[in-house]
Amino acid sequence: MSKNLNSEFEDTIAALSTPQGIGAIGVIRLSGKSSIEIANSIFKGKNLLGQKSHTIHFGKIIDDKTVIDEVLISIFIAPRSFTKENIIEISSHGSPFILQKILKLLISKGARLAKAGEFTKRAFLNGQFDLTQAESVADLINSDSEATHMAAMNQMRGGFSKRIKVLRTELIHFASMIELELDFSEEDVEFANRDQLTELVLKLQKEIHKLIESFSVGNVIKNGVPTVIAGKPNSGKSTLLNTLLEEEKAIVSEIPGTTRDFIEDQIHIKGISFRFIDTAGIREARDKIEAIGIKRTREKMKVASLIIYLIDLCNESIEEIGIEKTKLKKLGIPYLLTGNKTDKLKTDEITLVKNAFPEMIFISASNENNIEFLKEKLIQLVQLDTFKTGDTIITNVRHLEGLQNTQLALNDVMKGIENNVTGDFLAMDIRQALHYLGEITGEISTEDLLENIFSKFCIGK
Amino acid sequence: MSKNLNSEFEDTIAALSTPQGIGAIGVIRLSGKSSIEIANSIFKGKNLLGQKSHTIHFGKIIDDKTVIDEVLISIFIAPRSFTKENIIEISSHGSPFILQKILKLLISKGARLAKAGEFTKRAFLNGQFDLTQAESVADLINSDSEATHMAAMNQMRGGFSKRIKVLRTELIHFASMIELELDFSEEDVEFANRDQLTELVLKLQKEIHKLIESFSVGNVIKNGVPTVIAGKPNSGKSTLLNTLLEEEKAIVSEIPGTTRDFIEDQIHIKGISFRFIDTAGIREARDKIEAIGIKRTREKMKVASLIIYLIDLCNESIEEIGIEKTKLKKLGIPYLLTGNKTDKLKTDEITLVKNAFPEMIFISASNENNIEFLKEKLIQLVQLDTFKTGDTIITNVRHLEGLQNTQLALNDVMKGIENNVTGDFLAMDIRQALHYLGEITGEISTEDLLENIFSKFCIGK
Repeated sequence: MSKNLNSEFEDTIAALSTPQGIGAIGVIRLSGKSSIEIANSIFKGKNLLGQKSHTIHFGKIIDDKTVIDEVLISIFIAPRSFTKENIIEISSHGSPFILQKILKLLISKGARLAKAGEFTKRAFLNGQFDLTQAESVADLINSDSEATHMAAMNQMRGGFSKRIKVLRTELIHFASMIELELDFSEEDVEFANRDQLTELVLKLQKEIHKLIESFSVGNVIKNGVPTVIAGKPNSGKSTLLNTLLEEEKAIVSEIPGTTRDFIEDQIHIKGISFRFIDTAGIREARDKIEAIGIKRTREKMKVASLIIYLIDLCNESIEEIGIEKTKLKKLGIPYLLTGNKTDKLKTDEITLVKNAFPEMIFISASNENNIEFLKEKLIQLVQLDTFKTGDTIITNVRHLEGLQNTQLALNDVMKGIENNVTGDFLAMDIRQALHYLGEITGEISTEDLLENIFSKFCIGK
Repeated sequence: MSKNLNSEFEDTIAALSTPQGIGAIGVIRLSGKSSIEIANSIFKGKNLLGQKSHTIHFGKIIDDKTVIDEVLISIFIAPRSFTKENIIEISSHGSPFILQKILKLLISKGARLAKAGEFTKRAFLNGQFDLTQAESVADLINSDSEATHMAAMNQMRGGFSKRIKVLRTELIHFASMIELELDFSEEDVEFANRDQLTELVLKLQKEIHKLIESFSVGNVIKNGVPTVIAGKPNSGKSTLLNTLLEEEKAIVSEIPGTTRDFIEDQIHIKGISFRFIDTAGIREARDKIEAIGIKRTREKMKVASLIIYLIDLCNESIEEIGIEKTKLKKLGIPYLLTGNKTDKLKTDEITLVKNAFPEMIFISASNENNIEFLKEKLIQLVQLDTFKTGDTIITNVRHLEGLQNTQLALNDVMKGIENNVTGDFLAMDIRQALHYLGEITGEISTEDLLENIFSKFCIGK
């Protein structure tokens, strides 16, 4: 379905746009042709119909003659609004009861309750931005770390879209050359130079490959790094976890009143979240851990992206550490060999272990010693350094699939060139690649695709 | 402390004004002399300094060169704002992470985190409204029923304040007459006619009495009516409770997306909430109730304001019902004698009971029969009919105490007149009455009093 068919909506949608619950203020949003008329019909104050865009008006919301609340009404006149439609925002006292009353009243006057993501969907269909940017709105709202925030912000500002569009333009140019050939097919002309096409496809594939590769980083950014703290009983696993989490708690509650929820068993380092798997178990299991044994720890380790392996420096010999390290290596998961309890050792004892295991990080979990260094090593281990701040990073599985499909179609183009197939076959594969790229940015979209994307949004956005 | 001393604040306060949590949008509010300057220092877009009041501006919040979010900024220029100071509202994407970032940024630029209720406190101290109106803002936000909403709205619109002010003006007139007497005390003149003063005080006492009386209704409005469903085992108590609650649930969830939380064991009838005491117990106790016995039910009944007493029409004789009724009466708590299971009785059987107990309400809890009638009776029992919609109703304990203290001071005035005391004694008592009335509206206020009131507000209001 082309977006132009949808650029005009007949109905006006309404929804609560602020979070549920009691607050100082709550905001209800209306979008559509009749937004201003509908708001005006329940507003006692200035006539809203004659007002300029981007102005605010104080007055009362009335139901017949009953005053529901004193409110501020903001007016945005199409196309100067988020949805490019007339938008009204009603800012009332933040009582769920009052907000519900106002919403009911708006619906009785002809508005319709908005579906999840419907405001953003309209913004997309009315050409405010492309699909990846629309998707970034949800990412932005859900961002909870420096890295997710920056990735979403970059995507919203069109970083990713621009790159896809450049790729697409180059392909379109070639597709049209080939299609020109088809018109002259009987004359056996080649408008589209095959060597140039090969070069272009290789270049595109390289770029797309890089974007696909970035997803591993994007995924880390979006979902955090599953991390396990492992080690023999009494190596100090729960002490280390508590040290890391307590510090996080302190950071999170720095500003009262707006602190985001503290997420159990998750820490942020340089904006990347590390999620500790089943660490609640570790913490509880202080007494039970001997009984449960090494087996269970090994299971946990298998689902980890990263292991902090703790050595009890007081109780493990160099031989024992060597055996542990060999087992660790076999797992094939990145790990940090970490010697704990340095506070209980003499310097020359530590030096001895250091000589045997130069890669070992030495900490004291209970004394909070060298924890910052451990954190730096964690970041290095997820290899985020390879990506620079400006780099475009894919965080969305839909985009990943689109790119992978494009890549497959381009593979077919390459095979076609190699096998010297005729222009019409090449054109078909190129069109397929164009289709997949177009789906990413929404230049090509179906109602199902949009439904799938926007239904994951919150209501009111 | 006079409010005029406080009418100018040097610092600029900031807070999140929308509820915590993830939402489509979140609003941060700034109030104070430097609001616009501070917002402008982190805003990339138009220069906010030259803009008109009540206008909205799209742009980016930036930290150095990093874009934090795309936002809408609303400007309210003093005194045309809620606090009568310069107010800025920043409407950003509703991510707690982003909101916290913006708030931190504002604080780094010179704003201070607002205390609970500090915006409303400033509005009061800057003369936007009196203290009872300021208090109604919190009531409005917390309103969760038709009745609490209307009481708060009436108070916010100054209904109560006006009445107090009229009382106060009349007393002030008399106080000044008496104080005039004192100036001429050696001449033994009576400027203030003692009969007229008696008449005035009686009139004031009558009015204050009415306001004090209204608190019983106000309390019911604000806190709901503690209600117990009682009756012998198997009389259908839990069925009735479920019938009432299921209906409430259906009403509450009428509009998806904004439904206020369904409060367990509470129903609303004509805007009044009836809270069922320990009814979770009743519901669970279906099998245990015989064991627990009548004793516990009696205990529950003692804390009730209202009892729905269920009779099992299938199993109780007229004699038995008579005995139950006698016991009920002794409790001295309003009750509704309710015959249940009409669906299992023949009409003439019902008529027999009806003749013996003409006041009995006949229902079938399981068939949801006559439940509406029962609800009407509940409303009649709390005697809310005696108050008309326009009547001023006290819902605030602080106001109640102020009125009670005023009443005591006026009693002293009356005694003074009866005992023919001199003008200076009368003046003292009248000034005391004036003091208490002034405290209600905040014409007289102390920092402690204000602290006490506004600390109960939410942050951001």
